[in-house]
Amino acid sequence: MQANAVVLLSGGLDSTTTLAIARQAGYHCHALSFDYGQRHHIELDAAERIAHSMQVTRHKIIRIDLTQIGGSALTDADIAVPQSEQPESETAGAGAPRPSGIPVTYVPARNTIFLSLALAYAEVIDALDIFIGVNAVDYSGYPDCRPEYIRAFAKTANLATRAGVEGADYRIHTPLINLSKAGIIRQGYELNVDYALTVSCYQANERGQACGKCDSCQLRRQGFIDADLPDPTNYQ
Amino acid sequence: MQANAVVLLSGGLDSTTTLAIARQAGYHCHALSFDYGQRHHIELDAAERIAHSMQVTRHKIIRIDLTQIGGSALTDADIAVPQSEQPESETAGAGAPRPSGIPVTYVPARNTIFLSLALAYAEVIDALDIFIGVNAVDYSGYPDCRPEYIRAFAKTANLATRAGVEGADYRIHTPLINLSKAGIIRQGYELNVDYALTVSCYQANERGQACGKCDSCQLRRQGFIDADLPDPTNYQ
Repeated sequence: MQANAVVLLSGGLDSTTTLAIARQAGYHCHALSFDYGQRHHIELDAAERIAHSMQVTRHKIIRIDLTQIGGSALTDADIAVPQSEQPESETAGAGAPRPSGIPVTYVPARNTIFLSLALAYAEVIDALDIFIGVNAVDYSGYPDCRPEYIRAFAKTANLATRAGVEGADYRIHTPLINLSKAGIIRQGYELNVDYALTVSCYQANERGQACGKCDSCQLRRQGFIDADLPDPTNYQ
Repeated sequence: MQANAVVLLSGGLDSTTTLAIARQAGYHCHALSFDYGQRHHIELDAAERIAHSMQVTRHKIIRIDLTQIGGSALTDADIAVPQSEQPESETAGAGAPRPSGIPVTYVPARNTIFLSLALAYAEVIDALDIFIGVNAVDYSGYPDCRPEYIRAFAKTANLATRAGVEGADYRIHTPLINLSKAGIIRQGYELNVDYALTVSCYQANERGQACGKCDSCQLRRQGFIDADLPDPTNYQ
């Protein structure tokens, strides 16, 4: 019998590769996306296309208004998305101090919020496996992409839930955590991921075309170059 | 200088007492409520009245649609709210198995979701103190009301966040965790909490009047009896 898994699916390159890995591992994949007021809302359309194309068992888009909380370039219109490889402290808008090299695109506690909702959904569908495409290499500035954070969340999950009380162990799978962007792309190619469906750009236009300039675009473009594989991204 | 604190405020008796305690301790209280599709939506009106009456620094109501996740009598119309002191397995609707004595009113991973959002807000307002009115005595059936769960979440919070990376320590305050309902009410009376403003009932009517029958009502009513203090609850 195949087990259920919850897979966080943003519609970007990393989460789509993660979904392909979960599917390859034999799970019934329940994809979960979030409509959280992100600037790059077009990625939700991408997530829908990907979920359909990769034949997930179910795809849910949960509405949660993080713009009410703010504090990130991705959810707060007053904070600018960085456009270059300059240190972020020089490109961030006023009122957006970010010490510790943490990018202005960091959304406060986002992975904790998303994993919590994945955990809730996992409880409802009797899944113990949650897949998240976090990466500690290219996004090392995000504290909630580190292995020690993921371990702490898993422990919290076991204490938070019915299944945990009954002795079950939640597994937070992070198959990309130690891969470079090129390594992720190579793995996706092996699993026949159609990267043309994915949107990574923080400010893609309404047709899903990437700007090619933001941090996320640059990282993605370099990944295809380093992997020496064709880049199917639809640029503006 | 007074420090900021985030206080989770449902509009019920426990969270209102918790807010009074945080205020008495000298914090600038930023109250956070959730419009999560709960049946007892009227409690949000109560939360607004309480936030105003107790002069919080700010009150935010975050919309998050947990009905899409379901799995609880509080968010899923197909699961009945228990009406008596019978074992819940006998009163739960079909399709709502609850082993381990965990009530059908348990919302999957709710406190983890709410604490995650409180953590995000805490990051934005530079608060390290989060107050939550969980109670391990009367609600011992909820796994996410236990001290070990709260400790695990605090550890996760330190690893998840910018402030944590910089060495700061989040404090998840649970001032009610070991109090009986009567003990909570006594403490609230000492702090001049106006319990007439609060709504605990899972199915209060649109005027905020309590049913007097559901588990939550019975627990609350008994609390006032045990504390030997007047019960100002507005019953139907």
